[in-house]
Amino acid sequence: MIVTVVGTGLIGGSMALKLREQGIAEKVIGVDKDEQHLKEAKSMGIIDEFADLNDAVMVSGLVIIAVPVNIASEMLANVLDILEPGTIVMDVGSTKEGICARVFNHINRKNYVATHPIAGTENTGPSAAFPDLFTGKVNIICDKERSSKEALDMVKKVYTALSMRIIFMDSREHDLHIAYVSHLSHISSFTLGLTVLEIEKNEKNIFDMAGSGFASTVRLAKSSPDMWAPIFDQNATNISDALGVYIEKLKLFKSVIDNHDMKKAHELIEQANDIRRILKS
Amino acid sequence: MIVTVVGTGLIGGSMALKLREQGIAEKVIGVDKDEQHLKEAKSMGIIDEFADLNDAVMVSGLVIIAVPVNIASEMLANVLDILEPGTIVMDVGSTKEGICARVFNHINRKNYVATHPIAGTENTGPSAAFPDLFTGKVNIICDKERSSKEALDMVKKVYTALSMRIIFMDSREHDLHIAYVSHLSHISSFTLGLTVLEIEKNEKNIFDMAGSGFASTVRLAKSSPDMWAPIFDQNATNISDALGVYIEKLKLFKSVIDNHDMKKAHELIEQANDIRRILKS
Repeated sequence: MIVTVVGTGLIGGSMALKLREQGIAEKVIGVDKDEQHLKEAKSMGIIDEFADLNDAVMVSGLVIIAVPVNIASEMLANVLDILEPGTIVMDVGSTKEGICARVFNHINRKNYVATHPIAGTENTGPSAAFPDLFTGKVNIICDKERSSKEALDMVKKVYTALSMRIIFMDSREHDLHIAYVSHLSHISSFTLGLTVLEIEKNEKNIFDMAGSGFASTVRLAKSSPDMWAPIFDQNATNISDALGVYIEKLKLFKSVIDNHDMKKAHELIEQANDIRRILKS
Repeated sequence: MIVTVVGTGLIGGSMALKLREQGIAEKVIGVDKDEQHLKEAKSMGIIDEFADLNDAVMVSGLVIIAVPVNIASEMLANVLDILEPGTIVMDVGSTKEGICARVFNHINRKNYVATHPIAGTENTGPSAAFPDLFTGKVNIICDKERSSKEALDMVKKVYTALSMRIIFMDSREHDLHIAYVSHLSHISSFTLGLTVLEIEKNEKNIFDMAGSGFASTVRLAKSSPDMWAPIFDQNATNISDALGVYIEKLKLFKSVIDNHDMKKAHELIEQANDIRRILKS
């Protein structure tokens, strides 16, 4: 099968590498507005050739849209407009409600599968791609009842080839829950980075005094603005609610510390420790 | 040399293992209020024997105080009271201003070196200890002018044996800067854990949807309340200031998201990305 990957960065590039390795993609066509990325992806063996979106879609069995979520919805509608009947298209964005709403009534909606592979690193571009990025992780398929059996079967085959566990959710539910377990942690990390950078004028102190704990907590602050600003925009309501709760709890923690209430601090930390049980289970 | 380790958990236990491996400790005596820990530490070869604090101090060349910071100050004063002239004592706590103030005028102050090895994991107890916990990390020695040359020389030898880089700071400065690069990130992580646990009633969603990003950001939320509640108490003023700035920046981020101001969101993320340069440098 010919697979077109639109967006040859970390996610699209890693998928291309693994789908080729697994024999699903006999040929990979890259589409990217960044010509440098296309050349890089080709020289790294991620893609075989590059083309314009329309030309690529015409000859492909599967089109993977792996671009920032503010671009993905419009692009998906355009791709569905010109699709051959047997071609399947999927996106991989971190927000699902908006894109599913955008094409809800499209005549070719059934050829589309809305997915969100929960995998990534803080790095970007073709050079960040590696075939085992997805191994052992979870992929979420949203609103599966809107996709045809053929489309679902192909996309399941793709994610099985990526060694992912597949779960199913409503797109609205997805955006609500992902706000807490992914989007909020990105904002807490970006903001931690901003705070330390503003207050700690002496960068040598950060470098010297930052342990592995700080590095872990601030890791996501290295994530791409091109990818994340649109995610925050699309999931604004849910994220704002999550941030509201987070800020309230920080204020509580601050007042506990201001009052030197060690007993309550101990309690709060013990409650937070419960995350250990869930992440392990 | 006989080394006494008071507190046979992650830090004390790891030091004992490495100092024995490096030939600095010919014999290690463990002191711990938790008898189970002592037995465990002995069976793991972390300590050779255990004893009461006073008996252990009498026969030791070096005493390492590795207990929660609310206990350490008083314990240090007691140890200095009974110290043989040639015995050196050091602590390893994450706050330094209070403990240095507590013994500032002690007649044996010069036998004490205030240190903070910036190393750790979210795990606790003797079973969490491993000899290379400190390798390649930074140790901070505070108020070195208050310690004798002999004491400093021995403690430098200890941290060199632990393969750590040593830097020197004023204890007040230490507490100020560490509030930003360590204590704040622990609170951001504890609070993220609390928020997600409260809002996401369905634990299966957390388990399914939490990617490596969330796991990384929330890792410190697994840290010990016995260790951290006292740290927050002792460094309350600095941490409260840091939290104040962090909360203000989160509010800014929230208003940017509420206003769908993608340009500003992009800017904030780009600024936060600067942490990449510093942590790499």
